[in-house]
Amino acid sequence: MNSETPYTEHTLWEDARQMLRKAEAENIPTAWDRMREQTPHCKFCELGTTCRNCVMGPCRIANRKDGKMRYGVCGADADVIVARNFGRFIAGGAAGHSDHGRDLIETLEAVVEGHAPGYTIRDEAKLRRIAGELGVADADTRPTMDVARDLVDVCYADFGSRRTELAFLKRAPKARRELWARLGMTPRGVDREIVEMMHRTHMGCDNDPASLLTHAARTALADGWGGSMIGTELSDILFGTPMPRQSTVNLGVLREDAVNILVHGHNPVVSEMILAAAREPALQQAARDAGAAALNVAGLCCTGNELLMRQGIPMAGNHLMTELAIVTGAADAIVADYQCIMPSLVRIAACYHTRFVTTSPKGRFTGATHIEVHPHNAQEKCREIVQLAIEAFTRRDPARVSIPVQPVPITTGFSNEAILAALGGTPAPLLDAVKAGQIRGFVGIVGCNNPKIMQDSGNVGLAKELIRRDIMVLATGCVTTAAGKAGLLMPEAADMAGPGLSAVCKALGVPPVLHMGSCVDNSRILQLCGLLADELGVDISDLPVGASSPEWYSEKAAAIGLYAVASGIPTHLGLPPNILGSDVVTGLAVDGLNGLVGAAFMVEADPVKAADLLEAHIVDRRRKLGLSA
Amino acid sequence: MNSETPYTEHTLWEDARQMLRKAEAENIPTAWDRMREQTPHCKFCELGTTCRNCVMGPCRIANRKDGKMRYGVCGADADVIVARNFGRFIAGGAAGHSDHGRDLIETLEAVVEGHAPGYTIRDEAKLRRIAGELGVADADTRPTMDVARDLVDVCYADFGSRRTELAFLKRAPKARRELWARLGMTPRGVDREIVEMMHRTHMGCDNDPASLLTHAARTALADGWGGSMIGTELSDILFGTPMPRQSTVNLGVLREDAVNILVHGHNPVVSEMILAAAREPALQQAARDAGAAALNVAGLCCTGNELLMRQGIPMAGNHLMTELAIVTGAADAIVADYQCIMPSLVRIAACYHTRFVTTSPKGRFTGATHIEVHPHNAQEKCREIVQLAIEAFTRRDPARVSIPVQPVPITTGFSNEAILAALGGTPAPLLDAVKAGQIRGFVGIVGCNNPKIMQDSGNVGLAKELIRRDIMVLATGCVTTAAGKAGLLMPEAADMAGPGLSAVCKALGVPPVLHMGSCVDNSRILQLCGLLADELGVDISDLPVGASSPEWYSEKAAAIGLYAVASGIPTHLGLPPNILGSDVVTGLAVDGLNGLVGAAFMVEADPVKAADLLEAHIVDRRRKLGLSA
Repeated sequence: MNSETPYTEHTLWEDARQMLRKAEAENIPTAWDRMREQTPHCKFCELGTTCRNCVMGPCRIANRKDGKMRYGVCGADADVIVARNFGRFIAGGAAGHSDHGRDLIETLEAVVEGHAPGYTIRDEAKLRRIAGELGVADADTRPTMDVARDLVDVCYADFGSRRTELAFLKRAPKARRELWARLGMTPRGVDREIVEMMHRTHMGCDNDPASLLTHAARTALADGWGGSMIGTELSDILFGTPMPRQSTVNLGVLREDAVNILVHGHNPVVSEMILAAAREPALQQAARDAGAAALNVAGLCCTGNELLMRQGIPMAGNHLMTELAIVTGAADAIVADYQCIMPSLVRIAACYHTRFVTTSPKGRFTGATHIEVHPHNAQEKCREIVQLAIEAFTRRDPARVSIPVQPVPITTGFSNEAILAALGGTPAPLLDAVKAGQIRGFVGIVGCNNPKIMQDSGNVGLAKELIRRDIMVLATGCVTTAAGKAGLLMPEAADMAGPGLSAVCKALGVPPVLHMGSCVDNSRILQLCGLLADELGVDISDLPVGASSPEWYSEKAAAIGLYAVASGIPTHLGLPPNILGSDVVTGLAVDGLNGLVGAAFMVEADPVKAADLLEAHIVDRRRKLGLSA
Repeated sequence: MNSETPYTEHTLWEDARQMLRKAEAENIPTAWDRMREQTPHCKFCELGTTCRNCVMGPCRIANRKDGKMRYGVCGADADVIVARNFGRFIAGGAAGHSDHGRDLIETLEAVVEGHAPGYTIRDEAKLRRIAGELGVADADTRPTMDVARDLVDVCYADFGSRRTELAFLKRAPKARRELWARLGMTPRGVDREIVEMMHRTHMGCDNDPASLLTHAARTALADGWGGSMIGTELSDILFGTPMPRQSTVNLGVLREDAVNILVHGHNPVVSEMILAAAREPALQQAARDAGAAALNVAGLCCTGNELLMRQGIPMAGNHLMTELAIVTGAADAIVADYQCIMPSLVRIAACYHTRFVTTSPKGRFTGATHIEVHPHNAQEKCREIVQLAIEAFTRRDPARVSIPVQPVPITTGFSNEAILAALGGTPAPLLDAVKAGQIRGFVGIVGCNNPKIMQDSGNVGLAKELIRRDIMVLATGCVTTAAGKAGLLMPEAADMAGPGLSAVCKALGVPPVLHMGSCVDNSRILQLCGLLADELGVDISDLPVGASSPEWYSEKAAAIGLYAVASGIPTHLGLPPNILGSDVVTGLAVDGLNGLVGAAFMVEADPVKAADLLEAHIVDRRRKLGLSA
C-alpha cells in the first residue's frame, strides 16, 4: 500500500514519512506537493514589492537599469510598499491573537451572566490575583462573580479606544515602558492599533518606512501584552492554570480501538467542552455501544497545546502533521475552531470517513459540517459533535487504517505559576543558576512548521544545540510536538544538555526544554522576562535571553517575533519575511531596531549557526551584567 | 515652456492638460507616466489570485490544463484567496474611515475637557439633536458640555466590543435591520469588525467565500453606519452643519498674487484650523508684509470638500489634480493629514518652492516637513504652518508660475439638514416629485479618479446622462470637483436636465447635482435613504435609488460601494475590484447579493451604458412601488 519514496528530505519523523508514503499511494496531495507546484514563488511578492492596496495598481517595483517601475502608480517606492505590506502582515497576526483574546472575555462574561452552562471559573485564586493586579477593588474579598464582572470590564476596556496604555503593560519593566513612550510604541488599545495599522497602509497615509515599522511594533505589542496576554490569563481562570503533568505525543497517540477526536485550532473554549463531553459516561457508553473501547481526544496545533497544558491530552501533531493525521484513516472527527487550519483538510477528510466539523462563525470551510458553538450552547453542541464522531467511527474502514510508531512521553504544564512553585515561590534560585553560569540564558523557541524547511529539523536542531550550550529552552506552539517527539520534554533529556543545565534540571526534576503552552502563551514568556528583569533591576533587553522561530510560516508568528523584538528580545527567524525588496526595511529589521529597542531580528536557516548567533547575544548580555560568559 | 502633447486622452480638463504639458516640459513624471510603466499589471494580482498571507507562499492560483497551481500551499483555492483578499481590501477602506471618525471623537472629547484651544462646538443644536437621537438623557436641557461628554461616551462605545449593534443603526429601516440580523451582517463594533475581518483572512480561519463576503459586508456597514457616520455628525457638531453656499473650482482658484495654501487629505480637524489661522489678522498682515495680496486657502481631495461644504473655500482639484496643482508653481504649501495623498507629491514639491507639510502621526512622508498637530496644539501649530507657507511664497519663482483657466462657480452645502430646510422641513415635497415622476430617482455618484480612465470622463459623463433622464445626482468626494468643473453644481445646470428634474430644480433654485460632502459624508446619503424609506414605509432596496463610483481607485471606495450594496443600494463601478479570478466571488458580487441584500454591483466602463443600467433599476423599483416608469 505504501510507496517507496523515503521522504527523508521532507520531515525528521518516521510517523510523517510513513503517512506521506500512504498519502502518495492513495493519491492524496499534501502541503509538500502544493509547495512543489508553487515553487518558484513570484519574485515580486517574495521580495515584498508588490502592492495591491488600490486599483490604480496592482503595482510591482523593479530594480531596472532604465529606471522604470521604480514607483507604483501613486508614487510609492519599494521601501514604502515593503513596509506597508509588512505592517499589514503584522496586523493580520495581531488580529488573530487579539480576536482570540476577545473570545475569552466574552466567555468569562457569559459565565458571569450565567449564560454559559458547563463553563465555570476553575481557578478562582488566579481570578482574584489577576483582578487585583489590574486594579479591581477588593478583589480578594468580594463575591467571585462580582470580581469576575469587573475583570471583564477591565479587559474589554483594553479593546476600546479610551486607554492610553494597555492594562497588562505594567508587567513590563519601567525602563521599557518609558522607551516605548519615547518611541511612540506604547500600545493603547488592542483593536485600535490593528485598525490604525490598516489605516496607515491605505494609499496616501503613512509613507515613511520607519514610521510604519514603529506602528507595526506597537501593533505587535498590543498583541503580546494585550490580546494574547488576556487570552492566556482568562483561559487559566476559566480552565485552570497549567501545572506539570505527563502526556504523550506523535501520530501513535491515535487508537485503532477508540473513537479518535482530533481538536484543531487555537482557542480552548470549544476544545475544553469537547473533552468534557467525551468524558461524560453517557457518551462513553455510546462509544462502547458503537464498538469502540473509548473516546480518545487528541490534540493538533495550539488548541491541542491548550488542552495538553491543562488536561494532559495526548498530542497527535503539529502544523505539517494535520493532513497526515487524517491519512492514518483513524481520525473519526476533526473539530476545528480557527487559525492555521489548512483548507486542504476538508478535501482530505472527504477521502476518508473523517468528519470535518467547524465550530466558529469566523472559521467556516466550504464543504465542512458546520456546528456553531457559542458559550450558551457549547455543552449541547459539543455533545452533538462527539456523537457525530462516534457515528463516523462506525463507518471507519479498518483496511485503510495505519497508525504509525509508538507515542513518546512528554512533560508539560510549565506555566509561570508552575515554574515559580517548583522554585519555591521566587525566581531567585533560577537567577542564581543564571548568575552561576549553570544556566547561561534562555531562548524561547516558538512557532510553526513550513514545508520550505525539513519538518522540525530547525525546531529540534536548534533546541538540541542550545541546551547542549547550557541555554534553557522554553517551547510553545508547534515546537512542542517537535521537542516532544525528539524526547526533549522529559527530565531524562537533561543528559542531552550541557553540564550546568543538566545539573539544574536533575536537581529540579525538569526537562531542559520547558513546554509553556500555545502560541498565545508566548505572553507567559513575556511576563517571565518582565519578572526576571525587575528582579535584576534591568530592562528586558539586558537579559541573557533570546527568541527563535526556526520554521515559522504565519502572520501570527511574525507578530510574535516583532513583539519579542520590541520588548527587547532578539529574535531568530529560520526564513525571512517578505521584506528583502527594501534595504531600508531589511536594515531596520536586522540592525536598526537594535538602536531603538535594544534588539533586532536574525535570519539564519542553519540551526547550528542560529545557535551561534543566539549564544553570542547571550554571552554579550552576560558580560554586560558582569557575569561569566 | 509647454510640450505639444495634447493629453486629450488623459483628462477631460483644460487645466489638467496645460499642467501635464508643463510637467512634461519640466521633466516631472505624474501618475499617468507611472501608470504607463506599470502596465500591463500582474495578471495574478489583477485577478485577485495571489496570496501573501503567510510565508509558506507567496502563492498564485492558475487555471492550468495540467491542474497544477490550482491550490495555494495551505490548500486554499482561487475562490478563498480572492474572497480573503477582497475582505482585507474592504478592511483597509473601513479602517481609513473609521480611524477618521475616531479622530473626531477624540477632538470632541478634548473640547469637552477644555484641552483644545481654538476648537468649539459650532452647532449646539445638532449636538443636542444627535445626542438625543442616540439616547443621551435630557439632551435638550443639560449643560452643553455635559451632553457632549455623554455623546463622546456613546460614540466611543461604538468603537468597543460590547455593543450588539452600532448606535446609528437605528437610522436604517426596521426591515433592513432584521435582514442584517438574519444574514449575520449586523455590525457590532467599528474596530471589531475590521479586526475580525483581518482575523478571518489569516491562514486557516474563514475558508468559505460566502462567509468571507458576508463579514466583508458587515465590516463595510460598520464603516457606513459607524465610523463614517460618526465622522460626519461630529464634524458638523464641531465645525457647523453645511448649508448652501457658493464657491469656485479648478486650478484657476490659485492666485498669482496670494499665498496659496492647499489643504489635502480628509479630516477637517487640521484643515479647519489652518483656515482659522489664515483668517487671523496677524497672519494676513504677515502675508502682506511678504508681498502677497492675501492668504488663499484652497482645497484638494476630501478635506477640501469638508471646508468647501462648511466654509465655502475654493476647490483646486480632485485626486488626479493633486500633482498638477504643484506643477502650477503657485502652490506655496500643501498641508496634508491622511489618505489618498500620493507619495509622489513630496518629490514634485521638491521640484518647486512648495512646502509639503504633514501633520498626522498616521501620515508621515519621508522627506516632508512634519509638524504634528493634535487638538491641544492645533492652533499654535497651524499658525506655524501658515507662516511656513508665507515664507515659501517669498521663494516662489514667478517664471515657473502658470495658473491655467478661470475658476468655475459652484453651489455646495447640501447636507440633509439643508435639503430638508429647503423643502420646508419634510421630505414630503421631494417624495411628491418622485411619485409624480418629475424626479424619477436618485443616484449618488461618489469616489475618485483613476488614471486607467480619462480623468472625470466617467464622473461627468454619468452625471450628465442621469440628469438628462430626470434622475437627480448626489455628489461627494472627488466627483464634486468633476461635476463642478462641468458646471453641474449650479442651478443653471437645470437646463441640462430632463424636463421633470429641470422643473423641480428651477422651482427650488437648486442644481440637478447636489454636493453632499466628502467621502465620509456618503453617510449622509445613507441617512437620507433611511429617511425616504421610512417615509414610504419600505426598505431601502425598494427605493428608486442607485449609487455609482465611475472612476474609483481606493479601498475606501470599495468599502463605500459594499456598504451601499449591503444597505440595499445597487452600485455601479467603472472598473472591477480584483476579484475576477473567482467565479464564485464575482457571481456573488454582481448577482448573488441581489438575493441576499436586494442589491448588487454592476461593472461598466461606459457612462452611457452605466446610466442605462442604473435607469433600468430605477424603472424597476418605480414599477414595484406602483409608480410610472
